[in-house]
Amino acid sequence: MNKILDHIQTHRDDYIQQLKGFLAIPSISALPDHAPDVRRCGEWCVAELQRIGLNNVALHETPGHPIVYGEWLGAPGAPTMLFYGHYDVQPVDPLDLWETPPFEATVREGAIYARGSADDKGQIFMHLKAIEATLAQAGALPINVKVMLEGEEEVGSVNLDNFIAANKDLLKADVVVISDSPMFDRDVPSICYGLRGLAYFQVDVRGSSTDLHSGSYGGAVANPAIVLTQMLAQMKDKGGRIKIPGFYDAVVDVTEAEKKEFSRLPFNEKRWAREIGLPKPFGESGYSTLERKWARPTFEINGLLAGFTGEGAKTVIPARAMAKVSMRLVPNQDPQTIGKLFEDYMKKLAPKSVEVTVTHMHGGKPWTTGFDNDWVQAAGRAIEKGFGRKPVFVREGGSIPVVSTFQEVLGLPSVLFGIGLPGENAHAPNEWLDLGNFHNGVLAAAYLYDELSRVAR
Amino acid sequence: MNKILDHIQTHRDDYIQQLKGFLAIPSISALPDHAPDVRRCGEWCVAELQRIGLNNVALHETPGHPIVYGEWLGAPGAPTMLFYGHYDVQPVDPLDLWETPPFEATVREGAIYARGSADDKGQIFMHLKAIEATLAQAGALPINVKVMLEGEEEVGSVNLDNFIAANKDLLKADVVVISDSPMFDRDVPSICYGLRGLAYFQVDVRGSSTDLHSGSYGGAVANPAIVLTQMLAQMKDKGGRIKIPGFYDAVVDVTEAEKKEFSRLPFNEKRWAREIGLPKPFGESGYSTLERKWARPTFEINGLLAGFTGEGAKTVIPARAMAKVSMRLVPNQDPQTIGKLFEDYMKKLAPKSVEVTVTHMHGGKPWTTGFDNDWVQAAGRAIEKGFGRKPVFVREGGSIPVVSTFQEVLGLPSVLFGIGLPGENAHAPNEWLDLGNFHNGVLAAAYLYDELSRVAR
Repeated sequence: MNKILDHIQTHRDDYIQQLKGFLAIPSISALPDHAPDVRRCGEWCVAELQRIGLNNVALHETPGHPIVYGEWLGAPGAPTMLFYGHYDVQPVDPLDLWETPPFEATVREGAIYARGSADDKGQIFMHLKAIEATLAQAGALPINVKVMLEGEEEVGSVNLDNFIAANKDLLKADVVVISDSPMFDRDVPSICYGLRGLAYFQVDVRGSSTDLHSGSYGGAVANPAIVLTQMLAQMKDKGGRIKIPGFYDAVVDVTEAEKKEFSRLPFNEKRWAREIGLPKPFGESGYSTLERKWARPTFEINGLLAGFTGEGAKTVIPARAMAKVSMRLVPNQDPQTIGKLFEDYMKKLAPKSVEVTVTHMHGGKPWTTGFDNDWVQAAGRAIEKGFGRKPVFVREGGSIPVVSTFQEVLGLPSVLFGIGLPGENAHAPNEWLDLGNFHNGVLAAAYLYDELSRVAR
Repeated sequence: MNKILDHIQTHRDDYIQQLKGFLAIPSISALPDHAPDVRRCGEWCVAELQRIGLNNVALHETPGHPIVYGEWLGAPGAPTMLFYGHYDVQPVDPLDLWETPPFEATVREGAIYARGSADDKGQIFMHLKAIEATLAQAGALPINVKVMLEGEEEVGSVNLDNFIAANKDLLKADVVVISDSPMFDRDVPSICYGLRGLAYFQVDVRGSSTDLHSGSYGGAVANPAIVLTQMLAQMKDKGGRIKIPGFYDAVVDVTEAEKKEFSRLPFNEKRWAREIGLPKPFGESGYSTLERKWARPTFEINGLLAGFTGEGAKTVIPARAMAKVSMRLVPNQDPQTIGKLFEDYMKKLAPKSVEVTVTHMHGGKPWTTGFDNDWVQAAGRAIEKGFGRKPVFVREGGSIPVVSTFQEVLGLPSVLFGIGLPGENAHAPNEWLDLGNFHNGVLAAAYLYDELSRVAR
């Protein structure tokens, strides 16, 4: 191991320079205009996997953005790790809030700022560097490795499930490793054992065929923006509880044991609120902030658009009003079932004076695992060696829908081995990745392969 | 009169060509980028007033867009008409819904399509042509004429009241004539005796300092878009009644006599709804469509903006949410008082988890007049001669705030002599003006000056 660790230490600065190249590609999967950039980024990954010594490397086409695959199978008898990550990134607007351009990675105060730095290019790269260092110094990996990188995670992994189902042999493994989540806090490395699911929708309300003069028509026609606000206002009560009938039916509530564990974590709510500039925390009555963001379902408006939104005043009644809305789901809520409940409720609330359309955009199932399984414990030891501290066991509020696919389709447990930090602005302007964590993460990933090689199957 | 009418007939096509030049100037007062265009349009008016024979023509500076003034005072002893209009226009977005470019006036099916064609350049131009024809053929006008054209009507005439107060002598007159409203219907010319007022606001709700990942933070922070919808949803009940405390206190209700008059007008609600593509009319319970749009106050959302509004899906909790809202007011509601009631109510509804700001954008008082006064009756005779039909007496849902200024500051009655048509898309894409009405309007304006000259003071 020492030669590998030395290699990683020596190449610390090289890794940052190489990562900048990865981060320079604007692989925004949500925006059709960026489709060529997404493909270019996939091709960049293919070249990198080949360069570091993986075999059978290829760009696999899908109806959407391609999937990158590569493998190293030179450890017969040893366990096989399937590493999953995503090379696509979130959109960058509002662009004017970025201190430095989102696709010109900039290092300042020990962190690298760029779209995708934390989510997920930086965390993919950490593994690629650990694999590269191990192959370079030891000539072999202690385990078999399969790497699968998708380009559609930020748009709901719409083609990934089909790819996995069609390539069960190719993807055969013992454990999945994913690095796409933050640590609990700076100097508090963690293993994540639970994720929320997601159901995402667009709601469109149509009134007249064209915007109307609010003087000539006001008072005599339904205003789609008013109808939309009145419908959306009925999704949640003032105590933060969601009012969609049946929404909580399948929810497995937080256990008393978990509540106790959560309350022991070094979480400073005041600091947390201050860091994100919050006037005051708010959430469902009867739950703590950690419970609210990890283990309780949500209803959010992600976007609103209607009528005149420029500078100044324009007296129109908008012809249309649009909202993007989404719900984070917890075990055992199902995105399809929840989608149906939401659509039924919206349709029930819709007045006849307008036309309301609900479009299902994407969804993913929630997930939890036991943290006493051997793979998770092996990952815990690797993190302790890489970061010099025992990890804590946490849940995460975000969604990695593929985790439940790995479980259901391939029968594989997942280990969530994330080295981001809270406040990393993953879906916001000025996304960043701590470079100390990145470096420790490369070390921990090298230790991880070693630890996984010794897990009895 | 005959020579004048002949002149107008002969120049019918010339007028349309000249009007196209006026309509080509994108004098959008609401958008700071268009300030030079607004000025250019004011200069175009100055040149035109000089060309047709007015004196003392000048561009008067204000802190905003300039005011055009010109006069012809060659009829000592005769009444003086102050003609008021506005040369600024509404913004044009959404631009992609225009069938032909908004500033390239296009004639089709007997109408001229362009931003400003009906509101208000076409109606200004109708008077300028009647003045031009009269001066050209009779060598003199039968009355004294003062023309005042402002460039800020579409942004609430913010500097007009000060200009009027500072120029009481310059603007001394007997009657104000304004052509900035539609006729009741095609072939139903009308005189308008009532207008609604306006109070316009922007509401901003701020949560976190930057957009947040809805997975990492969802459930534990207030979502400004949800707060905004919940606040706005409380402005109106399901029956269309406004819930702002005190909102109706000063309202003078529609009289039984008016209700009877309105119900006699040739109004086809089904056709009206079909023409604007409405699924179903909607408004305050207990009032007809005409009562709702002419004589009852309103609350409308004119614009909504928050978070991600592009194609696809982005899982953010927006840091900010914004709404433009406005209320149409009826006698005797005061925009300042209503603004205070609205702001107080919003502040009362605002939760501590966000910061809510209410900005007063502009306002104007409602207005009604007796339609039995001599000036109004003279205008009625002119319309009958120009259009070949007796006018009906109507109210209008829009706002011309300066009408109450003329009454209060200059002590002048106003005659609303409008030749637009319902459905003219005044504040929407594909604004148009019927060319038959425009032509009859030039004739009626020439008759108007003649009729006004015979009113006893």
